[in-house]
Amino acid sequence: MYKILKMEGRAKRAHMETVHGNIETPVFMNVGTAAAIKGAVSTEDLQQIGTQVELSNTYHLHVRPGDEVVKKMGGLHKFMVWDKPILTDSGGFQVFSLAGLRKIKEEGVYFHSHVDGRKIFMGPEESMQIQSNLASTIAMAFDECPSSVADRRYVQNSVDRTARWLQRCKDKMQELNQREDTINKHQLLFGINQGAIYEDIRIDHAKRISEMDLDGYAVGGLAVGETHEEMYHILDEVVPYLPKEKPTYLMGVGTPANILEGVERGVDFFDCVYPSRNGRHGHVYTNHGKMNLFNQKYELDPRPIEEGCQCPACRHYSRAYIRHLLKAKEMLGMRLCVLHNLYFYNNMMTEIRNALDEGNFASYKRAKLAGFEEYDKK
Amino acid sequence: MYKILKMEGRAKRAHMETVHGNIETPVFMNVGTAAAIKGAVSTEDLQQIGTQVELSNTYHLHVRPGDEVVKKMGGLHKFMVWDKPILTDSGGFQVFSLAGLRKIKEEGVYFHSHVDGRKIFMGPEESMQIQSNLASTIAMAFDECPSSVADRRYVQNSVDRTARWLQRCKDKMQELNQREDTINKHQLLFGINQGAIYEDIRIDHAKRISEMDLDGYAVGGLAVGETHEEMYHILDEVVPYLPKEKPTYLMGVGTPANILEGVERGVDFFDCVYPSRNGRHGHVYTNHGKMNLFNQKYELDPRPIEEGCQCPACRHYSRAYIRHLLKAKEMLGMRLCVLHNLYFYNNMMTEIRNALDEGNFASYKRAKLAGFEEYDKK
Ligand SMILES: [Zn+2]
Ligand SMILES: [Zn+2]
Repeated sequence: MYKILKMEGRAKRAHMETVHGNIETPVFMNVGTAAAIKGAVSTEDLQQIGTQVELSNTYHLHVRPGDEVVKKMGGLHKFMVWDKPILTDSGGFQVFSLAGLRKIKEEGVYFHSHVDGRKIFMGPEESMQIQSNLASTIAMAFDECPSSVADRRYVQNSVDRTARWLQRCKDKMQELNQREDTINKHQLLFGINQGAIYEDIRIDHAKRISEMDLDGYAVGGLAVGETHEEMYHILDEVVPYLPKEKPTYLMGVGTPANILEGVERGVDFFDCVYPSRNGRHGHVYTNHGKMNLFNQKYELDPRPIEEGCQCPACRHYSRAYIRHLLKAKEMLGMRLCVLHNLYFYNNMMTEIRNALDEGNFASYKRAKLAGFEEYDKK
Repeated sequence: MYKILKMEGRAKRAHMETVHGNIETPVFMNVGTAAAIKGAVSTEDLQQIGTQVELSNTYHLHVRPGDEVVKKMGGLHKFMVWDKPILTDSGGFQVFSLAGLRKIKEEGVYFHSHVDGRKIFMGPEESMQIQSNLASTIAMAFDECPSSVADRRYVQNSVDRTARWLQRCKDKMQELNQREDTINKHQLLFGINQGAIYEDIRIDHAKRISEMDLDGYAVGGLAVGETHEEMYHILDEVVPYLPKEKPTYLMGVGTPANILEGVERGVDFFDCVYPSRNGRHGHVYTNHGKMNLFNQKYELDPRPIEEGCQCPACRHYSRAYIRHLLKAKEMLGMRLCVLHNLYFYNNMMTEIRNALDEGNFASYKRAKLAGFEEYDKK
């Protein structure tokens, strides 16, 4: 059940109910690729940093430990000890970006595992079966994500196939949700809009998939090399053709500024590896821009990463200490930066929701973006 | 202030008061080499796993971030946010084991930093100055730790010099503790007994340093290559010549079994990198022996590492999940194993103290050792 509580322009403030609890949107999902957030962050930590939805990767969990193992352990929720919503991607993106030598056919994709090189086949039915084994709250349809520089004819063919795959995903999910031994019989399915940067292909595809009455709709294949302006343009063009009364998910995006722009264009689900990946490299987000904690100027800085921040890092530790840990290659340095960054993102989403509730998202967004630019000017 | 509460044979159960709070002994100090426990364990975590004393390394902190930096940040307690006792080693052991090309002279040691190769000189006065800058609760005297296979003449000369260095350490510490700008004016000094495996040299040295009325006495230069039996023999011979009414510290030791044997021989302070190092490799301690969590047999094991264990890992996560994390090289796997191992050690010390309080240490030790051997037999 998804219900819009408030709108400001195209921006949506919504509430969604799932078998694993409610989701307030706009929401940033925290990426735990292999059933754990990189940077030694546990699901217990996630409770402390305001995570609503954890996102895990179907492809990674299929190759290790194996979705059958996760199923035997009672599903992903029990396995990683997280009782709130989990979204699993379809594996498509990883198959196309990570796996070795692959062959795309009508039935699906043949490829080699990046872990041990063994041959794997994944098509819509296999992806749905794996995600059903993982028992996530929300499963993503199996799609091809064509390169942002692919030619028009390639993209058109790919999108047509992705549309046929979507129907197969929907049929398979219906079947799986009725099986006796399925862990989550209420698994939801989101379809994915593709079409690279060809608006007309994307719009046509969006119209076709909108008719399928899925539980949500994602815009995929963005943030893969095109400019921010191209991405915003695609959102301007495509989101109006996706059902407003269903959640809208912009996959793999992005910077705090990208998220503000996405919300303005009607997106309510986001995910991105930036906060954890940047955190592991000592790059931390603040309301005044990004900081590189390796910088010499923090050597004796007794302040927290961000004054007033209530994250587990800022509540206790100084920039000077965290900088030392990073330089000494102590894992704790990475962990503290990741915790701060995820908290920063989650907290920004809370601010966004509050601003939408109060009808002042536009001015909130303006002020927030101005703040981010401050640091770069110094 | 150190006070023996109870004895059983030579085993001591004592209580020590410091400016940073009390220490109940026997105690296992948790090693945070560079002002952090390896494995992404924060000082906040230490509160949860029953840590009494944190141990940091003078040599490491001198080369990075620099003891002057730590002093400017208000000392190690403020820097790493830990308000309980901290013991710093003297740097001697690292200088002799880690540093490149070194030259030992009467005044001290010339060597090259393992981080950037720069030339450093460290003698008794320098070590005391650095430890005063770090402002630890307990400072260790600067000593040479000769190789366990060094010949008798080398060891005798080395021990004589270490005795002369000890007097210089004591004089310097007295001076430093009186300085206006010293952070911890009540810093304590422990001397270190050396002599490799030559009992007579060790006993002679123990007698000489016992007369110096230091705050505590350590047995150093053990667990560096000799057998366990040689180590226990040295303890049998030497500990009786160290002041009973002062804390006795066995440096760098050891396995749970080593600790039980040490306690029986009158030791009350221990430290070792085993629990954190083994944890990072997926080797975890239980009451039934050590487990290698990489083992295939834990793939579907829903049990915690040790049933009934109250550590942050066992309270939530299964062997199957932690095994997956380790295999996927997720830092969280290491973190959970390190937390369990440190908790296991800290908790064993609590059991030891309880057994001593109740006068049944001998039977506790026998039962504990029998348990450890169980696993190996299976
Ligand atoms: Zn913070
Ligand atoms: Zn445990």
